[in-house]
Amino acid sequence: MNRHSHAPSSILDILQAIADGRSDPDREIAAAFDRIAATDGEIKAFTRVADRATVKAASGPLAGIAFAVKDIFDTRDMPTEHGSAIYRDHRPVADSAVVAMARAAGATVIGKATTTEFASMDPTVTRNPHNLGHTPGGSSAGSAAAVAAGMVPLACGSQTGGSVIRPASFCGVAGFKPSFRLLPTVGMKTFAYTLDTPGLFAASVADVAFAGEALARRPLAVDGRTEASGLTVGLYRSHIDNRLDPEMRAAWEEAARFLERAGARLVDVEEPAALAAARDAHGTIQGFEASLALADEYRTHRSLLGPKVAAILDEAAQVEPASYDDARRVARIGRKAASALFETADVLLAPSALGPAPESLESTGDPLMNKLWTLTGNPVVNVPGLAASNGLPLGLSIIARFGRDARALAVASALEALIRAA
Amino acid sequence: MNRHSHAPSSILDILQAIADGRSDPDREIAAAFDRIAATDGEIKAFTRVADRATVKAASGPLAGIAFAVKDIFDTRDMPTEHGSAIYRDHRPVADSAVVAMARAAGATVIGKATTTEFASMDPTVTRNPHNLGHTPGGSSAGSAAAVAAGMVPLACGSQTGGSVIRPASFCGVAGFKPSFRLLPTVGMKTFAYTLDTPGLFAASVADVAFAGEALARRPLAVDGRTEASGLTVGLYRSHIDNRLDPEMRAAWEEAARFLERAGARLVDVEEPAALAAARDAHGTIQGFEASLALADEYRTHRSLLGPKVAAILDEAAQVEPASYDDARRVARIGRKAASALFETADVLLAPSALGPAPESLESTGDPLMNKLWTLTGNPVVNVPGLAASNGLPLGLSIIARFGRDARALAVASALEALIRAA
Repeated sequence: MNRHSHAPSSILDILQAIADGRSDPDREIAAAFDRIAATDGEIKAFTRVADRATVKAASGPLAGIAFAVKDIFDTRDMPTEHGSAIYRDHRPVADSAVVAMARAAGATVIGKATTTEFASMDPTVTRNPHNLGHTPGGSSAGSAAAVAAGMVPLACGSQTGGSVIRPASFCGVAGFKPSFRLLPTVGMKTFAYTLDTPGLFAASVADVAFAGEALARRPLAVDGRTEASGLTVGLYRSHIDNRLDPEMRAAWEEAARFLERAGARLVDVEEPAALAAARDAHGTIQGFEASLALADEYRTHRSLLGPKVAAILDEAAQVEPASYDDARRVARIGRKAASALFETADVLLAPSALGPAPESLESTGDPLMNKLWTLTGNPVVNVPGLAASNGLPLGLSIIARFGRDARALAVASALEALIRAA
Repeated sequence: MNRHSHAPSSILDILQAIADGRSDPDREIAAAFDRIAATDGEIKAFTRVADRATVKAASGPLAGIAFAVKDIFDTRDMPTEHGSAIYRDHRPVADSAVVAMARAAGATVIGKATTTEFASMDPTVTRNPHNLGHTPGGSSAGSAAAVAAGMVPLACGSQTGGSVIRPASFCGVAGFKPSFRLLPTVGMKTFAYTLDTPGLFAASVADVAFAGEALARRPLAVDGRTEASGLTVGLYRSHIDNRLDPEMRAAWEEAARFLERAGARLVDVEEPAALAAARDAHGTIQGFEASLALADEYRTHRSLLGPKVAAILDEAAQVEPASYDDARRVARIGRKAASALFETADVLLAPSALGPAPESLESTGDPLMNKLWTLTGNPVVNVPGLAASNGLPLGLSIIARFGRDARALAVASALEALIRAA
């Protein structure tokens, strides 16, 4: 299997260069502007780039880090369009919470990244940096592509089905979907309020962990001391695995062998019925909540909606409240079942997508491998580094118990190091 | 104890008059405009009234019902200012979910009701219809006062501490704080995202239950068949009861005696330590979440903030994430303890406020009796009908198990009937 060589810029490398006096924050922000100018004509990851004359580096742990913001997060100084014609040139009054947290940590908002319409399934114009004919995934298309193409070292996205982990996998970057509510959704356009989860993209797991710590002010940074030795890693097996591309199946097995050779104990974890049911409940919950969250847009501007989001809302209009209430009970039982999985395994290992990015700009791929963990709220980290025979990245997910974000990041970083060393 | 006589207009009476051909929806909306024009100069419940020339009745179960919207809920056709100078004349693109639900049910948005700044503690200009020198409570000041003064039969509000149940108690109207998330917060200004709960005000419990059913599309309407006989009613006793005004204490005992005489079994329910701790955790959770939700407003426009919300945010800036995470764990344990209470009682009865509305327009009163149930997410209904010796209303809360909103409303309606019959 080919290993993918990529050139995203690493947060930790940039901060080291600044600390060593080889660079400074303003120079790093200027370099990001230069890279966007040189690259984004082809990749189309940005809907808007900040005004170079007025934007500068700030201070804090992320000083000098250019930050791309998915265009469903409100920004005070740039329009926020949610990928929708209804919100053309819409200007929010205040920054969303995640943007305010990033600015408070010293990051510089350098532009707004493309999003599928309302972070749903209608594709953007963005292209996969590894092969321009392939989708970067979605809904956080621009965020993943901007990091993968090396334009910015950090981007935020959001996941309601698989919108952080899938594009991270397709683009070969680290993606971090934290435990539900670790990062607040305030000022982010709502699609489904019990599912929507802000997340982050960066070059490596250590980079995304450092950024997560800087934003959330919790101990998430990776110290490099977590070893595979002594860990029990569960290979999460479910009936949907028969949908996996053979190359993804091989990548999964290869990652498992890396961990085993480094001393981890592997166990098969068969999906309990409660979690299969929870995955099946995801669509009902997402649709019903979206039909309330976007009720006015649907009623007032249906003709301006993209065909995929319109179809989701048409179907959701038929969901009875009682069906939704039933699905929420199934989800609640599922969350308990998800916690119980971690009585037998420290973390779970699973594919981040069905296979590499499909050859199409008409679809953003399938969130099937991700949506269960969005619904349960468990932290998930996409580990990049492996690739398919066509050179496109194949990502693997490390999943940890709810609230154990630091553990997910530490083990993911250890796996990433094993893949790199191989 | 004096019984309070009030003249709010009843949703069910209006709908009956329309059904009987004695009125029609357009006439009812016109009458509401007339009442606002005649009354609001004194009460000051509205920040804006809709354009009479363009607004008309719609169709649906709430056709002919004029609906006042707390000014933290986005409306497409009227500015939404959150009670804040920062949002002066701010015009949202789309209706909030609750407003869209009300419109879909046929209600007519007739105006925006005053809110304390960001639904916190800085008072509005609104006056209590029962005595203009007294506060109507807050934060949903205009909503409660507009219903109490008979200007509109229905209003929405929101509760993060005690912002629905307390003003309902002070103004002598029915207030319904549903189970957390029964009504979505989408398009509502966030103060604390794990606490913010939309709610409703109407003349009587049966009115608010009917409106709740029309909006939420769940069976909540009161059929009048619930009897006190056979019910076990818990009198919820906690150490904060020593703060109660003697007249509120007497009203609580009087309501309990009404239920007992009608056949209910009364039991004392002593507050478990887990719930005392959960109440104490409320402030930490509210402050920390508000500091993230309003981070940009605080950083960019602190001088435009009112003194009370500024003080809350100043203090919240000192809360460490670890303290918040601890408080969230206490809240989670508290939610389980709250559910366990309903193994020994069908519902709980407790005061809705410490006493009648204070004689002041400088304070909106104290949410002490409400904030525990906001944190646990249990449904609470304020039952009006009793009053203090100065004529000001005293409300009582019926609290039910999470998700048992219909039970809370049914028992509250039964109690209301007993009070009226007495």
